Amino acid sequence: MSNKEKGFILWFTGLSGAGKSTLSGLVAEELRRRGKKVEILDGDEVRENLSKGLGFSKEDRDTNIKRIGFVAKLLARNGVVAITAAISPYRETRDYVRSTYPDFVEVFVDCPLEKCIERDVKGLYKKALAGEIPQFTGVSDPYEPPLNPEIVVKTHEQTHEESVATIIRRLEELNYL
Amino acid sequence: MSNKEKGFILWFTGLSGAGKSTLSGLVAEELRRRGKKVEILDGDEVRENLSKGLGFSKEDRDTNIKRIGFVAKLLARNGVVAITAAISPYRETRDYVRSTYPDFVEVFVDCPLEKCIERDVKGLYKKALAGEIPQFTGVSDPYEPPLNPEIVVKTHEQTHEESVATIIRRLEELNYL
Repeated sequence: MSNKEKGFILWFTGLSGAGKSTLSGLVAEELRRRGKKVEILDGDEVRENLSKGLGFSKEDRDTNIKRIGFVAKLLARNGVVAITAAISPYRETRDYVRSTYPDFVEVFVDCPLEKCIERDVKGLYKKALAGEIPQFTGVSDPYEPPLNPEIVVKTHEQTHEESVATIIRRLEELNYL
Repeated sequence: MSNKEKGFILWFTGLSGAGKSTLSGLVAEELRRRGKKVEILDGDEVRENLSKGLGFSKEDRDTNIKRIGFVAKLLARNGVVAITAAISPYRETRDYVRSTYPDFVEVFVDCPLEKCIERDVKGLYKKALAGEIPQFTGVSDPYEPPLNPEIVVKTHEQTHEESVATIIRRLEELNYL
């Protein structure tokens, strides 16, 4: 199997509203256009199907992320690009998932908290800041940015198209495309 | 994509000790020999990775089975033969999973309870019959056999090799191989 037919895990991480879902969808489109098999494991869909009943404590978040990692690994080792787009706030948990599979590419969707609050795509920051959502990442719960992500995109400085181009170029450099 | 490159779900169901794990391993070997991509979602492995904390109430069992079904579907639609080997005692839940994916092949590993108790591979029946394991399928919890499974193997009448041959032949007839 050539490297280009290989599956891998493309792991988006970043604050709520940073642009993970949008970017993962656009990257998936481009990868499919290039003939890759792609699955997006979105935070909400996975919570519904794999983690119903789990809350947002550190332990529950970790369990959710490890489950996403387990499924991503099963897909990747069968030639699929497994894209995940959950907040995944804890560095140690992301690094744990990284340790379970060699072809792991971390994409830090770097957007300052103020910008995410300004956008407030889902209206969640307003509620979180009003104290209506406990344990909200960035407001009342920590977010630990990656120290050495393979890819960084800055959605407050780049258009989505530019961010997608950055990701695809880097995947080519890493010999995944 | 030709039918022969298609993924599908091969869903083993049957009592504890009926032979699901052994048969699923042997079938997986034969399928890999034929060039298929295969993943086995074993009851215990999946409980560890996807369902830690769940018990054996009907509700928890159903949740576990639905999670296995969700992952099996993700694999199958990417060209993998997703083999599952959990007891999956409830007919309605198996039929629910069937309804989520068109290429679903149910294998009933039919072995009478007395035979399973006689074998008692894991020593679990002894404990269950002594009342040490509550909600044990076949002893203190129901098992609902499939009404119209695509494949039936009788491990008390056939050798494992014969059962594997039955399964492979039927998969050929169904045009999956």
